[in-house]
Amino acid sequence: MTLNAIESLIASFAKLPGLGPRSARRVTLKLIRDRARLLEPLYHQIGTVLQQACVCSTCSNIDTSDPCHICTHPSRDKHVICVVEDVADLWAIERSGNFRGTYHVLGGTLSALDGRGPDQLGIPKLAARAATEEVQEIVIATNNTVDGQTTAHYITDVLQPCNVHITRLAQGIPMGGELDYLDEGTLAAAFQSRRPI
Amino acid sequence: MTLNAIESLIASFAKLPGLGPRSARRVTLKLIRDRARLLEPLYHQIGTVLQQACVCSTCSNIDTSDPCHICTHPSRDKHVICVVEDVADLWAIERSGNFRGTYHVLGGTLSALDGRGPDQLGIPKLAARAATEEVQEIVIATNNTVDGQTTAHYITDVLQPCNVHITRLAQGIPMGGELDYLDEGTLAAAFQSRRPI
Repeated sequence: MTLNAIESLIASFAKLPGLGPRSARRVTLKLIRDRARLLEPLYHQIGTVLQQACVCSTCSNIDTSDPCHICTHPSRDKHVICVVEDVADLWAIERSGNFRGTYHVLGGTLSALDGRGPDQLGIPKLAARAATEEVQEIVIATNNTVDGQTTAHYITDVLQPCNVHITRLAQGIPMGGELDYLDEGTLAAAFQSRRPI
Repeated sequence: MTLNAIESLIASFAKLPGLGPRSARRVTLKLIRDRARLLEPLYHQIGTVLQQACVCSTCSNIDTSDPCHICTHPSRDKHVICVVEDVADLWAIERSGNFRGTYHVLGGTLSALDGRGPDQLGIPKLAARAATEEVQEIVIATNNTVDGQTTAHYITDVLQPCNVHITRLAQGIPMGGELDYLDEGTLAAAFQSRRPI
């Protein structure tokens, strides 16, 4: 059976993360009903993203220009590079609004199973950036998971010969965290890294 | 602050039902990463839907042709019209694959508060369809909610003068329903409509 245009659109939406067939139908109906306010703008925005979206050749961020707006921004601190697994992590750090340096997006963690070695993650490129005069600190902000930490250790080893300060994000109790509900690992890490008040 | 193309796309996705800012970001990243397999097809499908999607002037179904493929299908039974609140309900009945008649989509329920009277729901149009020689039965399949049932009663009153058989969907225990978990209303309705085995 060939799908008509509406059915094909539903099938496409159903492929997206977090959407199933049911929500894809709801989304499609809503879009068609609110054609002028939702469907047409979405069409033009996707067209623009198709034209403009690209991967930054410096930091592998996804943006509408290459190099990306963070790499080219005059007020960003080029002395500090924050290493993240994913563009979503970069966005999360940008939302927190604290970090004023630049980034390096790995695009995943080291994984022999999925065939992701240091080259796929752009680690040699990161080492080359770290070796330049300009860079003083590398903040490793991979996820606090087994894979993320393995990758962090590997990167630390690779960057050791470069004359840079290597740091990683603090581990401890999250904001609003109640001790009773925290896992033992987090509590142990928070104890180990306890600080004078 | 003006949004760039990627941020605008995220904002548009976040407006859709079932998606929030977080899932909109995930969807957008996934689309950009899988440009050839997801983003480009989605763009073309939305373009086609923009061109083709229309409301059937007979039954108010949303389709790519007017009259819709159900109204024009030679094997659909034109003697029976199923009245539903919404296109999503029509799709649900089509998926069940049991009904071979045609439809009438109200586009909601009667609601003085939201300014939806009989005219907005196309009830005069339904009455006109019901008055033709051809139509023998009207199946009222509005939701089994207070609003849905009020609307059903109103439609029944309006159609009384027409020479048609008016029916509504059976009320009772759903497939897989466990008595212990059913509400009193459903159980009472199932008792009232009990049938000889």
